[in-house]
Amino acid sequence: MTDTAALEANGWAKTPDGTALEKTFKFANFVEAFGFMTRAAIHAEKLNHHPEWFNVYNKVEVRLTTHDTGGLSELDVKLATTMDKLAG
Amino acid sequence: MTDTAALEANGWAKTPDGTALEKTFKFANFVEAFGFMTRAAIHAEKLNHHPEWFNVYNKVEVRLTTHDTGGLSELDVKLATTMDKLAG
Amino acid sequence: MTDTAALEANGWAKTPDGTALEKTFKFANFVEAFGFMTRAAIHAEKLNHHPEWFNVYNKVEVRLTTHDTGGLSELDVKLATTMDKLAG
Amino acid sequence: MTDTAALEANGWAKTPDGTALEKTFKFANFVEAFGFMTRAAIHAEKLNHHPEWFNVYNKVEVRLTTHDTGGLSELDVKLATTMDKLAG
Repeated sequence: MTDTAALEANGWAKTPDGTALEKTFKFANFVEAFGFMTRAAIHAEKLNHHPEWFNVYNKVEVRLTTHDTGGLSELDVKLATTMDKLAG
Repeated sequence: MTDTAALEANGWAKTPDGTALEKTFKFANFVEAFGFMTRAAIHAEKLNHHPEWFNVYNKVEVRLTTHDTGGLSELDVKLATTMDKLAG
Repeated sequence: MTDTAALEANGWAKTPDGTALEKTFKFANFVEAFGFMTRAAIHAEKLNHHPEWFNVYNKVEVRLTTHDTGGLSELDVKLATTMDKLAG
Repeated sequence: MTDTAALEANGWAKTPDGTALEKTFKFANFVEAFGFMTRAAIHAEKLNHHPEWFNVYNKVEVRLTTHDTGGLSELDVKLATTMDKLAG
């Protein structure tokens, strides 16, 4: 099973059905939010694992799930951990 | 009143209450979708008018509205028109 | 040996010592140039092979070489080919 | 005259002829370097004042000048100051 305890301690929440992780990132302004998205996008493409994400101004809402398995996988943990590092 | 007829002919839909414009853009893959978002982000910041947008893989769902006026404005028309050109 | 004939037919030039490929891309404006760079950057990181590139306004000068081997490799051909596709 | 003392104290160097400011930024890796460039690009376009910049891997060499006046202007100071903030 995918261990998400460390991520949950860092602000990620599992959806009620346990198939996805969600977190909202807030930045100083739109430029900072988009700088985060650009760096996260590069990492996502490199992992070949892409987020579902919504942005408005300084806010980025992220939802991670692994469509192939219908649930969470190590790729979600890896991308979530990377995003936390990028957001500093 | 803000004239959105040309945009509606180009795939934008007004929300039922008339306060926002929505369109879903599809690209060949994630990299193309994010390339579109980057260029649109630069234009958005330049206009100081930012989209609400959701991305997953090759899909970008955009919602434009003008919070200051609680409805559509020329800024929405301008950003929508720019996005259509970028997605070209 | 790395075959660069197709690339040279498409505007890439080998440096006199044969260790690098160079091409200058021109776009309509800065935003288009940076949109190209963003998409190329994602591909570069995915290949773990990065360009030397210079940008001013609508112009992007690219130099590709493989530092590990001190010359051209298949990675340069791959990144050059990808960049040509992106620049469309 | 354009006052660049604060920038020079922060790592920017005037070219011998006094017409440009130069600085090399270094980051942890390519992704961080490109994240910086993306945010700087958005600010540059907003100012309608664009850098001459060279990137290889984690390094970004920037040169700022104002072509219209053939020397330095307040726009260079503004963009340089913004870049310093972005690079944190």
